Amino acid sequence: MLKNSQNIFSFIKSAFSEEESITPTKSVIKWLEKRNEQVSIHIEKVKFYELKQWKYDEYSGSLRHDSGKFFSIDGIKVSTNWGNVNEWEQPIINQPEVGYLGIITKEFNGTLHFLMQAKIEPGNVNYVQLSPTLQATKSNYTQVHKGKKPHYLDFFRNAEPDQILLDQLQSEQGGRFLKKRNRNIIIKVDEEIEVKDDFIWLTLAQLKKLMNFDNLVNMDTRTVISGIPYGSYDEDVVGLFKFFGYQGNNNIGRKFLASALLENSLHTNDEVIQFITRLKSYYELEVERVSLKEIDDWVYTPSEIKHKENKYFKVIPVQVEIGNREVVSWSQPMVQPTQDGLCAFVCKEINGVLHFVVQAKLECGNFDIIELAPTVQCLTGNYRDTKKGKLPFLDYVLNAPEEKTVFDAIQSEEGGRFFREQNKNKIIVAGDEIPLELPENYIWMTLNQLHTFLKYNNYLNIQARSLISAISFI
Amino acid sequence: MLKNSQNIFSFIKSAFSEEESITPTKSVIKWLEKRNEQVSIHIEKVKFYELKQWKYDEYSGSLRHDSGKFFSIDGIKVSTNWGNVNEWEQPIINQPEVGYLGIITKEFNGTLHFLMQAKIEPGNVNYVQLSPTLQATKSNYTQVHKGKKPHYLDFFRNAEPDQILLDQLQSEQGGRFLKKRNRNIIIKVDEEIEVKDDFIWLTLAQLKKLMNFDNLVNMDTRTVISGIPYGSYDEDVVGLFKFFGYQGNNNIGRKFLASALLENSLHTNDEVIQFITRLKSYYELEVERVSLKEIDDWVYTPSEIKHKENKYFKVIPVQVEIGNREVVSWSQPMVQPTQDGLCAFVCKEINGVLHFVVQAKLECGNFDIIELAPTVQCLTGNYRDTKKGKLPFLDYVLNAPEEKTVFDAIQSEEGGRFFREQNKNKIIVAGDEIPLELPENYIWMTLNQLHTFLKYNNYLNIQARSLISAISFI
Repeated sequence: MLKNSQNIFSFIKSAFSEEESITPTKSVIKWLEKRNEQVSIHIEKVKFYELKQWKYDEYSGSLRHDSGKFFSIDGIKVSTNWGNVNEWEQPIINQPEVGYLGIITKEFNGTLHFLMQAKIEPGNVNYVQLSPTLQATKSNYTQVHKGKKPHYLDFFRNAEPDQILLDQLQSEQGGRFLKKRNRNIIIKVDEEIEVKDDFIWLTLAQLKKLMNFDNLVNMDTRTVISGIPYGSYDEDVVGLFKFFGYQGNNNIGRKFLASALLENSLHTNDEVIQFITRLKSYYELEVERVSLKEIDDWVYTPSEIKHKENKYFKVIPVQVEIGNREVVSWSQPMVQPTQDGLCAFVCKEINGVLHFVVQAKLECGNFDIIELAPTVQCLTGNYRDTKKGKLPFLDYVLNAPEEKTVFDAIQSEEGGRFFREQNKNKIIVAGDEIPLELPENYIWMTLNQLHTFLKYNNYLNIQARSLISAISFI
Repeated sequence: MLKNSQNIFSFIKSAFSEEESITPTKSVIKWLEKRNEQVSIHIEKVKFYELKQWKYDEYSGSLRHDSGKFFSIDGIKVSTNWGNVNEWEQPIINQPEVGYLGIITKEFNGTLHFLMQAKIEPGNVNYVQLSPTLQATKSNYTQVHKGKKPHYLDFFRNAEPDQILLDQLQSEQGGRFLKKRNRNIIIKVDEEIEVKDDFIWLTLAQLKKLMNFDNLVNMDTRTVISGIPYGSYDEDVVGLFKFFGYQGNNNIGRKFLASALLENSLHTNDEVIQFITRLKSYYELEVERVSLKEIDDWVYTPSEIKHKENKYFKVIPVQVEIGNREVVSWSQPMVQPTQDGLCAFVCKEINGVLHFVVQAKLECGNFDIIELAPTVQCLTGNYRDTKKGKLPFLDYVLNAPEEKTVFDAIQSEEGGRFFREQNKNKIIVAGDEIPLELPENYIWMTLNQLHTFLKYNNYLNIQARSLISAISFI
């Protein structure tokens, strides 16, 4: 048992508790719908020259805000010995600041609740999604844009060490962001706290349940939730279930919980480190800046920056008007995907414990060459165009029978940068049809191991974390 | 107990075994002396234009080898919000390749032995030092320089997963190298293996003992040794000692061993991650390339690149002739320090377990902003010049009484790049004179925690690892 077990026990209990919540689950969806109705949002695609305060900067060769803050769209040239294409150029979002993704928690009736926000983001498919208590870039919270101070900011700024339940640096999409990281933080308060409009208290079990609905829990919530530790135990699982007062009777939930708690894994953590070291030593990733207007294979028109074959994504200038009681408007570039993506974990029982097929994946914006990714992570166009069977496990995931698909929902990417980008998220529990032997660059890991690597810097990518956050134990 | 305990037990046993070695410790020093006598070495400081195949490249603004391989000396401009000086320029070694630092181990009479090499390096104070079995840059082992294939290379290339005892990416000096990392690897062989001239079998206990001599065990050996895991246990220490058959009667050795094995720490690992996350979120480090000939405050003369006040270090061109039976000669730039350094850990017992005062330190070449460093890490000139008491713990370390100084030796930095660079390494076991409360950016950690963080990427710097490698349990 661990020393910080008090925090861990609170998290575990909250992950078991749906009916113990002070907010009924079914009321949440209605509440979000109502928030959506009350909101007026108008987004218009404009021309680059119509963007206020955003300009193409000749000197840096990038699209920037006049203040030099927020983010910029840069051009990069990538060279690598990974995969079949070893050199390419592309636009990328460069946002070197570390932002806050913070959740305040508090116990009600002995169960930890998370203070969630119904937040409008211009790029969201459902305009309003459940987001962390605080979601703020450094420009935001140092108030470069002279806007209002974000709600609850001072709770995080002034948190005492013993209030902090989790504080981790986590990466964003390596294909779209250049080495971007956020500070994922959960704090606990004991005092009374004002619940502002658009905020709501939910348990961890509820958040996981709500992820079964398409585009309802936003990416920032998912990444923070994914980092929650449940501890490591070498005891027998029945004893642990009893110890934690686990009542779940969902068979697959029990299996996931066992995989999260137990140390019984096919490979030790040291072996996983060896697997990663070998790949990081072998694969090279070099990223150079190039001018955004001179990227090979991309066209910079007055209304978009796009790939000449309309592949991957576009950068588009938009004018946003968003309001509830008061209306705010601004303009900014956004990234619009040309197609949806697919992220899936395949798992199966090995020595009685569920193991996940984890892929080591190089993406050009990765902080450290490779990160651990889901079994399958691709754009739909990728697999529709390529020959069948080329991408490991893709056919299997596309054709997996319903009874083996334990999670299946569409999840949005961050709505502040991405325009209606969404990915199919799937978790499949396989049987003997998936052999123990894996292709190169793939490894079996338990949920316990994924949680351990997740908390050290830049090991698990956002797509893997999004799937992990959705795993329910009840 | 851990699953890969067989490997861990072998390491622990080897760390206890001095007299069980097939090579008596006292013969090692004589053997090294003899190697030194048999070697002829001639190093001459020359002019930059006399360097064969090395030139200042106008385009990149750096000093490079004609092949573009090996390494280059670049100029950088550093901007940071760390410390008192927030902007400066300096030369730095840029060697983006990941090299091998590999040790072959094998059991003799049931005790794991390490195959060590008496290796000549031009920058070594003692020309010959004990180095890993294999020490090879990528240029080396892909034979860019058309030299001989390094001895034992194929053992590492062809190692099966179950032969690999350790495989970690570890950083080099962040003040001198730009994001340099090496692959630290230990493999185990069962078969008969030819022991070539200049190679010798030693136990882990012997390597640690030999580190008490100045400049005898090289930096590459120290970094590999530092990563060796001893496992984590929540059992009582007497039971563990019995379990491992520990016979050590050195009181301080027993305390270090307990600190290495036990999970009883003042802070949990999650709390250490929180400490690091807070600092990495707050501190910024920006490094831009500038031309080596235009670095502020540095002068590029025909015979050296030096700071205008002769501070820090110089880059010097040298002509090297080294030989035993056959003579090889080459020329290269090297980095020569203008003074020696001091690296020290202060520890003390907290709740019955030794804890180390660990400093989070930003250095310009760090891969990820800050790394965990010794309690004190500085150039001697730094502290001789600055006002007394400015650097935390410096006065304490300089004036520590002999009976509290449990380790005290001078250790060389890597002799392939550094010309006679050496640091005083000290470990001090303090009492109540060191309060529990630490300055900002410092944290108490056990040896067990240091070992855990060490194995994940880029958490502990080379100076901390060098000290950890020297800790003996007997």
